[in-house]
Amino acid sequence: MSDDLKALRERLAEVSDLSRSAGVLGWDQRVTMPPKGTEARAEALATLGRIAHDRFTDPEIGRLLDRLAPLEESLPYDSDDASLIRVTRRDWLKACRVPTELRVEMTRAAARGHQAWVEARRTSDFRSFLPFLRENVELKRRYVECFDPSDSPYTPLLDDYEPGMATAEVKEVFAVLRPALTELVASAPRVEASFLRGQFAPEAQRAFAERVLATLGFEEGAWRLDRTAHPFCTSFSNRDVRLTTRYHEDNLESIWSTMHEAGHGLYAHGIADSLLRSPLGGAPSLGVNESQSRTWENLVGRSHAFWTHWYGSLQETFPAQLGNIELDAFVRAINRAEPGLIRVDADETTYSLHIILRFELEQELIEGTVALEDLPEIWNARMKEFLGVDVPDDAHGVLQDVHWSGGGIGYFPTYALGNVISLQIWAKVREALPDLDAQMAAGELGPLSDWLRDNLYCLGRKLTPKETLERVTGSGALDPQPYLTYLRDKQSGV
Amino acid sequence: MSDDLKALRERLAEVSDLSRSAGVLGWDQRVTMPPKGTEARAEALATLGRIAHDRFTDPEIGRLLDRLAPLEESLPYDSDDASLIRVTRRDWLKACRVPTELRVEMTRAAARGHQAWVEARRTSDFRSFLPFLRENVELKRRYVECFDPSDSPYTPLLDDYEPGMATAEVKEVFAVLRPALTELVASAPRVEASFLRGQFAPEAQRAFAERVLATLGFEEGAWRLDRTAHPFCTSFSNRDVRLTTRYHEDNLESIWSTMHEAGHGLYAHGIADSLLRSPLGGAPSLGVNESQSRTWENLVGRSHAFWTHWYGSLQETFPAQLGNIELDAFVRAINRAEPGLIRVDADETTYSLHIILRFELEQELIEGTVALEDLPEIWNARMKEFLGVDVPDDAHGVLQDVHWSGGGIGYFPTYALGNVISLQIWAKVREALPDLDAQMAAGELGPLSDWLRDNLYCLGRKLTPKETLERVTGSGALDPQPYLTYLRDKQSGV
Repeated sequence: MSDDLKALRERLAEVSDLSRSAGVLGWDQRVTMPPKGTEARAEALATLGRIAHDRFTDPEIGRLLDRLAPLEESLPYDSDDASLIRVTRRDWLKACRVPTELRVEMTRAAARGHQAWVEARRTSDFRSFLPFLRENVELKRRYVECFDPSDSPYTPLLDDYEPGMATAEVKEVFAVLRPALTELVASAPRVEASFLRGQFAPEAQRAFAERVLATLGFEEGAWRLDRTAHPFCTSFSNRDVRLTTRYHEDNLESIWSTMHEAGHGLYAHGIADSLLRSPLGGAPSLGVNESQSRTWENLVGRSHAFWTHWYGSLQETFPAQLGNIELDAFVRAINRAEPGLIRVDADETTYSLHIILRFELEQELIEGTVALEDLPEIWNARMKEFLGVDVPDDAHGVLQDVHWSGGGIGYFPTYALGNVISLQIWAKVREALPDLDAQMAAGELGPLSDWLRDNLYCLGRKLTPKETLERVTGSGALDPQPYLTYLRDKQSGV
Repeated sequence: MSDDLKALRERLAEVSDLSRSAGVLGWDQRVTMPPKGTEARAEALATLGRIAHDRFTDPEIGRLLDRLAPLEESLPYDSDDASLIRVTRRDWLKACRVPTELRVEMTRAAARGHQAWVEARRTSDFRSFLPFLRENVELKRRYVECFDPSDSPYTPLLDDYEPGMATAEVKEVFAVLRPALTELVASAPRVEASFLRGQFAPEAQRAFAERVLATLGFEEGAWRLDRTAHPFCTSFSNRDVRLTTRYHEDNLESIWSTMHEAGHGLYAHGIADSLLRSPLGGAPSLGVNESQSRTWENLVGRSHAFWTHWYGSLQETFPAQLGNIELDAFVRAINRAEPGLIRVDADETTYSLHIILRFELEQELIEGTVALEDLPEIWNARMKEFLGVDVPDDAHGVLQDVHWSGGGIGYFPTYALGNVISLQIWAKVREALPDLDAQMAAGELGPLSDWLRDNLYCLGRKLTPKETLERVTGSGALDPQPYLTYLRDKQSGV
């Protein structure tokens, strides 16, 4: 290896170690930290973030990248080394635009905001959260000013999560989705699903979820599952994957919430070893990452084939609630479209409408056309308009999501893009694995898991989101039609 | 505040944040990390350790300390600022002796060694642990070579845990303890304690321990208790204290093990806010720290007065095992002296003999007069000699403790020093709180906790161990007699 490449790799490994360490602190903050640890944790995270940013934006990295350009050009485009140099250059140029002090302020505000949100959500008290949200939004506006003007001030924020994506592209996809989904929701048949409400002991839910997780393709001793207020997944290497979930006593949503996080976890678990401790050791974008959480949650976890294998176990786990319910009725119920208040509990049809609402609000917040104190009112009005539901309180409305508390603005649209992408990739999976339904019906998820690992997850961030999509499906363009076709087929009972 | 002092404080806060972050990674590694996360965790810890060391040994800190010498001299010796400058100077001079690369290697070897030990202990397989232990010992020898020769090559290691203490001083104290303790053990009466063996459901033990912990003086929301293989306590601020413990189904040792860790936790919890994010935000030495874990475990947790309040609850928790046992019989049993295999389960009388054995072995390992592969044999022979017990396997012998796996050589003697110091301080407590027994018998531990916080814990590392002891008791000299008197009184039933 050239000395320059070795030097670059060492510097990037250090930055990666700092980021993963901050990841551990973040996981701990959400899963285990006593609440009074907040202040010290915010300081520690700010320090780690500052040092990581300083080290990554060191001019020496720019010089190394310049000197490595000839090597990059001499190597295949998708080789580990050429990709490392190329992707690092993009990240470096972007990071150098942001003053360290601004980044430190954002990290600190995010940590404080998170803790304030936990309390505000518990007491459904938006006003106590408002100053923290205001701070986060104002910092994001300052962040946007670090970049050249583009189609929208929202684009630099979106780009953090969906590299290379313009706000206009998202609008275009959502312009197709919104009327089509609204129509689907309006015409959705009533499906009997009252048996999905009842008493489901959390410990039994957990045991069932862990049995399912054990079949998805994770190596033993390389992951764990914990409880938290807002489910998420993080990883500190491809062999230290942390899934979190929550159990509601009165429903079974934890099954799909857990499979969702497991989809993220399988992505992290499948990153090639050669990409670890570098900027390539992740998914190419949140949208691509989300396509896989959606794949495992919905395309697998709500399929008739999957439940052909698992439904008997679930009935045995909850005989009083499900003993008399047929498999077909259960599968119809878990696939029904039904407007609700909570994004993470939403079905596949209504889900993207929750996202489009948030996407529009975020743009307005960043552009300053909406006042922060009016958010609850606007939220509630639009929930009525989009989904026809009445929001009873902010805990079930504007305070339901963790993202804004930590400064995660620009993140939400990637969820809906994930839905779109998941069906584009799924078409390829179907071609490659013609026996997939039979395998799932036999409880064999290994072939699916292996295919996705070998054709998608292992690539890490070597390619852009569009290049990755093109590599897997043959086309890099977003196409909402497979997703809409899937939903329409589902609704018509195909 | 002078600009130099501000600059020094900022740099020290950053180093403290890095160390506390490494602390979070260490806690997670021991409490929650999936085993296959080891390799990545070792890299992350090595990176944090290297950056913290680099930043702390930055020559600019030396220059700041030089420029701050006049300020230091102008301030009261025990003021926060003078203490910060003085203590930082000692730490800095010591740290500058150690090359960064050596420290990185030690950190990395410690992380790997820990994981190897977990597995070796589980399978009682010393040989699988041997290469990791060898690496740790060799690194410690290289570490010792960084310092000027002193009374023993062991002294620089001891000094890491007990600043200012010479090996010869420890030998002197142990020379008094060893024969006195051996005699006490030999003459210990047989005490009926069979009722302390039986079936004690871990969940019930946990619930009882948490009820006790809630009365010791911790603020709510500033601590937590988790399970681990080898109990320890760490903290990431004085409001984020992590206690860990383990529950054996067949005995109640978790009560005292948990109170022990709670003693460490109360120390961390009592550090003055003004000392946080600096080198002063800890205890002056492990021995002084240990004096407090011993205080809460033994002087409180085995006292007749404490159990006058709590024994009824314990009987209600375990009626089948303790319902027919009188308070006096219970207190006699938990205070009996009885040789055993396991240090952490040892009673107060035999405990220090376990330590003296380790202290002697550590010196021999560092001096190279004992071969590593012979350790199990020598361990077993000395256990027979010191305590008259036969070691059945290495899991119950040389592999029982976590310390050496992580390079913690020089640490053990501080446990016995803690016993000695605890009784020196306890005499002062008794003077200050004449109603202590009545308070404990009423379940009121607040006055004790407050006194210790206000007179000892709040001082942090402002003073040396000897200065701290002198501040609290009027004399800074180690004196084993109060400890021996306490044990003799106990044995004779006073």
